[in-house]
Amino acid sequence: MKRPPAENLYEQVARRLQEQVANGVYRPGDRVPSVRRLSTQFDVSISTVIEAYRRLESQGLLEARPQSGYYVRTRLWQPPAQPAISQPRCSPTAVSVSALAMKVLKASRDPHVLQLGVAAPHPSLLPMRALNRILARLARHDEGKGVAYDFPPGSPELRQQIARHALDAGCTLAPDDIVTTSGCQEALSLCLRAVTKPGDTVAIESPAFYGTLQTIEQLGLKAIEIPTCPRKGVSIEALKLSLDRWKIRACLLVPNFSNPTCAVMPEERKKRLVQLLAEREVPLIEDDIYGDLAHGSPRPKAAKSYDRKGLVMLCSSFSKTLAPGYRVGWVVPGRWREQIEHLKYVNTMATPTLPQLAIAEFLDHGGYDRYLRKTRALYAANIERFTHAIARYFPEDTKVTQPAGGFVLWVELPGKVDALELRRRALVQGVSIAPGPLFSATQKYRHCIRLSCAYPWGERLERALLTLGRLAQEMV
Amino acid sequence: MKRPPAENLYEQVARRLQEQVANGVYRPGDRVPSVRRLSTQFDVSISTVIEAYRRLESQGLLEARPQSGYYVRTRLWQPPAQPAISQPRCSPTAVSVSALAMKVLKASRDPHVLQLGVAAPHPSLLPMRALNRILARLARHDEGKGVAYDFPPGSPELRQQIARHALDAGCTLAPDDIVTTSGCQEALSLCLRAVTKPGDTVAIESPAFYGTLQTIEQLGLKAIEIPTCPRKGVSIEALKLSLDRWKIRACLLVPNFSNPTCAVMPEERKKRLVQLLAEREVPLIEDDIYGDLAHGSPRPKAAKSYDRKGLVMLCSSFSKTLAPGYRVGWVVPGRWREQIEHLKYVNTMATPTLPQLAIAEFLDHGGYDRYLRKTRALYAANIERFTHAIARYFPEDTKVTQPAGGFVLWVELPGKVDALELRRRALVQGVSIAPGPLFSATQKYRHCIRLSCAYPWGERLERALLTLGRLAQEMV
Repeated sequence: MKRPPAENLYEQVARRLQEQVANGVYRPGDRVPSVRRLSTQFDVSISTVIEAYRRLESQGLLEARPQSGYYVRTRLWQPPAQPAISQPRCSPTAVSVSALAMKVLKASRDPHVLQLGVAAPHPSLLPMRALNRILARLARHDEGKGVAYDFPPGSPELRQQIARHALDAGCTLAPDDIVTTSGCQEALSLCLRAVTKPGDTVAIESPAFYGTLQTIEQLGLKAIEIPTCPRKGVSIEALKLSLDRWKIRACLLVPNFSNPTCAVMPEERKKRLVQLLAEREVPLIEDDIYGDLAHGSPRPKAAKSYDRKGLVMLCSSFSKTLAPGYRVGWVVPGRWREQIEHLKYVNTMATPTLPQLAIAEFLDHGGYDRYLRKTRALYAANIERFTHAIARYFPEDTKVTQPAGGFVLWVELPGKVDALELRRRALVQGVSIAPGPLFSATQKYRHCIRLSCAYPWGERLERALLTLGRLAQEMV
Repeated sequence: MKRPPAENLYEQVARRLQEQVANGVYRPGDRVPSVRRLSTQFDVSISTVIEAYRRLESQGLLEARPQSGYYVRTRLWQPPAQPAISQPRCSPTAVSVSALAMKVLKASRDPHVLQLGVAAPHPSLLPMRALNRILARLARHDEGKGVAYDFPPGSPELRQQIARHALDAGCTLAPDDIVTTSGCQEALSLCLRAVTKPGDTVAIESPAFYGTLQTIEQLGLKAIEIPTCPRKGVSIEALKLSLDRWKIRACLLVPNFSNPTCAVMPEERKKRLVQLLAEREVPLIEDDIYGDLAHGSPRPKAAKSYDRKGLVMLCSSFSKTLAPGYRVGWVVPGRWREQIEHLKYVNTMATPTLPQLAIAEFLDHGGYDRYLRKTRALYAANIERFTHAIARYFPEDTKVTQPAGGFVLWVELPGKVDALELRRRALVQGVSIAPGPLFSATQKYRHCIRLSCAYPWGERLERALLTLGRLAQEMV
């Protein structure tokens, strides 16, 4: 039998050691076998054992003592508590986060700044070589298709692949159910335009992604923020009360790995959500951009999979998984198919042709699933490392989400810490963060920040988290 | 001295013969020298003379008589008359061209249809090999930049090139004056959103590009159509009267090679336009997408070049010159710089990265100007061939524009011909055309059609024009 690849091997070693600690084979304070010894015991290479020990160290299970070896930590590490369910003021309000958002965006163009404020994977974590190679080949052999307009609904090749892949999210789709877009942002914006007019009210999570908030602001809509649990997502009860009380034209939600909390609505809750909205004929605009980045398997279902009335408009893109710079997203508009196709045409006329074709080919040849398996594990490990560093460096009583997917952390600092001030000070130190008020129509979450963990782990990150912790400590 | 390339040589030969006819060396009905003879007289190859004679034939100067040779046509060909200045009803109206536009769009996806209805150059007329080669190289050597978001204002490399190139249009720009967009359509849409709100009135040409009309419709704006001369563009006097009478929030005009008439405002008129709007603080959204496709040299100036108050918002793209499928355009938003940058972010977050970089490199290495020189001549020749075929095959009294740039013809058929019916019948015969009512907010121009001439000339085109002419004749 062939050995599994090295990255799985050290995880196996780590898990076996974890089990031994759990079973009391090694107790807190015990020295675990030397690297050489374990290498012989488990019949793996020295470097695999070192990698396994480092991982267990970063998880807080082991600690290294200089000149002596690895020991089981005497006080086993507990991750910080998670933030509680949000308590927004449940009434329609105008949104104004644009000015702040543009400041954050400006800083994001500075290559000397460590961009923990932008939820974009570091290019080295994307399958850029394989994908760019396909793009290059398609460009070299293009006989005209690649330079021509690809009018809505967009590339048939890509829509076929998206339809196949949607089965993972529980959705049975035909290619013609799909319209490709210039990223998920355009998809969301088109959906809002299809089902609302200025002055209408849209229900959203709280906290919510600032890109969504800005679209709502720009379209002259009002937002109503629904209490949201950082684990289980939006409260159906609270949403129901709001639907009873206010004329809500649409819900725009992120049922899987919501940004910034990474909350996942349990399947039963998603089902109830879709039923509730179906009873009232309220469309659900579903942002599933992080859905494929579940750390475990299988990935959670899209709310769209429970849709029987064409009321759910499923939006997503490849910007978090393949290449933000390719600008390829899509929407499954349900009963608004014709309107969305037209709005897409009027908004940007077409989606870039060659990038669509390259992604279609990447999906077709199985590279996507392999890439996802690798990256999910990497993000899970990074989230763990970030959480560990936060527990070590940030002020006491800091709360952190425990995501089961995606790559962002939502950090609730002690009440005295002003996230906007923290952002300013951190930027001076070369670190960007996304301050909490960005994620609220009503400028809440002044003591919260969102950190992106989609970077190759290393000293620079550890130092940045140390710096952030120090700056936050100074403000307590 | 090196001989100029062959395509210039035959043009020289044709011109010299033209001069001889003009000077009376050969009169109508005279036989011109045989191909062999002229080849000796002018010291050029036989194939060059054949090419020159074919060109003069297609221009209607010569006619071939079988077994006999070429003769000067006895009735020298006069191009058909041009359409007169338009007479739209000058009052704000709601727009509704979307349903019709989407039908035309649907037909445009059929590869078996000859797409004379879509104003997109045939890929073989684009510099696709050179451009795709650059894209392929950039993709192969990408170290992360190409897959990453390129947030607004967009690629500095591309903005630098656009600024350099804008001097040809009389505009002195800095790279930071420019925001890149997903094509010109997005640029126009963002500009309208920046300076209007639903219910506002926008002044436009008549006829006007249907993409613009649809954006106005989608944004809930009203359009006021201004009388427009198919040679000199919008009437300043009529615009002034409308400005006096109605609250006009913005003008959206195409001063150079307007779509569909290819009208060019004389420089003095452009200057007066900019002054008139400046006095009243009304923004001018200038669509210059065809500006670089002037058949002569130098290209006409952009109205932006007369702007002293930052009131002109210049929009353009590379979709008519390089690659529609790359989706790269730009806007020079003047005093709305910040708003446009933000609107761009909210609308589609970023412009595709690698396509921007590829176009920047193509512009930087001089390929663009060379390509333009070649293509301008080709479009001029095609326009001539189309006009000739229309004069030959279409009903008497058909009027045609005489464009000095771009690649579309606006054809005014006798009043009895219904362009919508003609479109339906032509589509059955495998030819798409753009019917006149598409180009009006008030469904005018029912007897007009727009034809795109950006195809390699050949029998298929000739046959298509013959078919169109026959169908039109049947309706007279």
